[in-house]
Amino acid sequence: MDDQRHDERPIGLFDSGVGGLTVLEAVARRFPEESFLYLGDTARVPYGTKSARTVERYTLQVADCLLRRGVKGLVVACNTASALGLAALRAQSPVPVIGVIEPGCRAAAAARPDGGQPARVGVIGTRSTVASGAYPYHLAMLDPSIQVISLACPLFVPLVEEGWVDHPAVRMIVTDTLTPLFTQRLDALILGCTHYPVLKGVIAETMGVRVALIDSSAAVADELSRHLGGLIAPAPRGAAQRLAFLVTDVADRFKETATRFISGIAVEAVEVVDL
Amino acid sequence: MDDQRHDERPIGLFDSGVGGLTVLEAVARRFPEESFLYLGDTARVPYGTKSARTVERYTLQVADCLLRRGVKGLVVACNTASALGLAALRAQSPVPVIGVIEPGCRAAAAARPDGGQPARVGVIGTRSTVASGAYPYHLAMLDPSIQVISLACPLFVPLVEEGWVDHPAVRMIVTDTLTPLFTQRLDALILGCTHYPVLKGVIAETMGVRVALIDSSAAVADELSRHLGGLIAPAPRGAAQRLAFLVTDVADRFKETATRFISGIAVEAVEVVDL
Repeated sequence: MDDQRHDERPIGLFDSGVGGLTVLEAVARRFPEESFLYLGDTARVPYGTKSARTVERYTLQVADCLLRRGVKGLVVACNTASALGLAALRAQSPVPVIGVIEPGCRAAAAARPDGGQPARVGVIGTRSTVASGAYPYHLAMLDPSIQVISLACPLFVPLVEEGWVDHPAVRMIVTDTLTPLFTQRLDALILGCTHYPVLKGVIAETMGVRVALIDSSAAVADELSRHLGGLIAPAPRGAAQRLAFLVTDVADRFKETATRFISGIAVEAVEVVDL
Repeated sequence: MDDQRHDERPIGLFDSGVGGLTVLEAVARRFPEESFLYLGDTARVPYGTKSARTVERYTLQVADCLLRRGVKGLVVACNTASALGLAALRAQSPVPVIGVIEPGCRAAAAARPDGGQPARVGVIGTRSTVASGAYPYHLAMLDPSIQVISLACPLFVPLVEEGWVDHPAVRMIVTDTLTPLFTQRLDALILGCTHYPVLKGVIAETMGVRVALIDSSAAVADELSRHLGGLIAPAPRGAAQRLAFLVTDVADRFKETATRFISGIAVEAVEVVDL
């Protein structure tokens, strides 16, 4: 009886490139018996500058690749793909699909300001994520009184991808880009792109201590915990965690960049796949 | 008789994105009776971080799209595609193919230092262009005594794509990136990426007046002039120039970015194509 409620298949998790590894690290730590199969669409990164139609098509192709390898659930660990491809993917996926946007919104909506005012929430993301309106939409569903201020930060992804994180030039670019948010008296700022947690230190210094930074990787782990044992059967007790990686181009560079993103898990066994 | 040596079909010109417009501007000005069909593979930009196999495949797909529209010649206005896809494309193209690397090398080899020393030539480009070794190879074919120093500048493309050109942070990034070249006593520096001419002012200030900057767009125009009337029949005398544009994603943003790159030609009539 008990065996039927366990499932040793991995959970699929994907991103346009390496950014989603921040989410993988959070869920792999939180669920040490679960196995994960990560796919980084490194041949077509970045998604954040592409049209809704293109991102939706890519999202379905990547999910299909993971489904053919037998995953028991899908985590779309990319804000742009979550914003533009999640509805189409949910409509046709045979397994449960978790995005990063709804969990991030729930965490942000919990950030209550002093004095009972409506929360003022900032959202930073890629151009496509911001243009999609996905964050304002989901925040309004949770609490229509929340005021949302969105800002695209298109240079943050290439800075992180190239490892420019601690350089004074990065501080200048982050400060200049975030300037429109300084006067907005924000209660919380959603880091609406999986690359941005890498710049969290600089963003925190720039925004000041009064603004709560919402990193969706922890929120996604919360969401997954609600699904495990419900729609997704958990791994058998005592199962050894397996982590495997698929990329669509240049496996060596993926490993090198991955070590800049995450410290808690080893990125080995990287396989190149054609989509 | 004379009619047979003219051909009013356009010349196809392509790049991974908007960078090749610097080349288009140079050839459209130089040959005001010739028509050009430009294709920017904006859905898959950047090429410079992708593997040789992937870039070769993309190059053949893009060329095929232009050939089906009836171009009389092809200009590969992208250094990465020229470095990694030109040989395969030339092997199967029914029309003449011009790349950007050989013309740039010829211009650089003409930069003679004082005192009869062998020329010392620097090459900056994307990671994939530099890794290909295409510039050292072609420079050695022209003059084996030339000493070549190559350097990848992966952040320059996103800076230009996002319009960060005059900002102090850009100066810091350019200076830091080019530091390894300062002590190399270069005679010439090849701007081995079609995006880099947009940063020419900052690069020139950083490298100093003694280093000749080689912008391959002028060199490509020289190369095309050798082909017109030879392998490529010129347009009829007095023909009105037509410029048309194809992109693989998001036409509006292409127009907006294009105006930052080029001032001499109008970017209208942009059509989105699937590859």
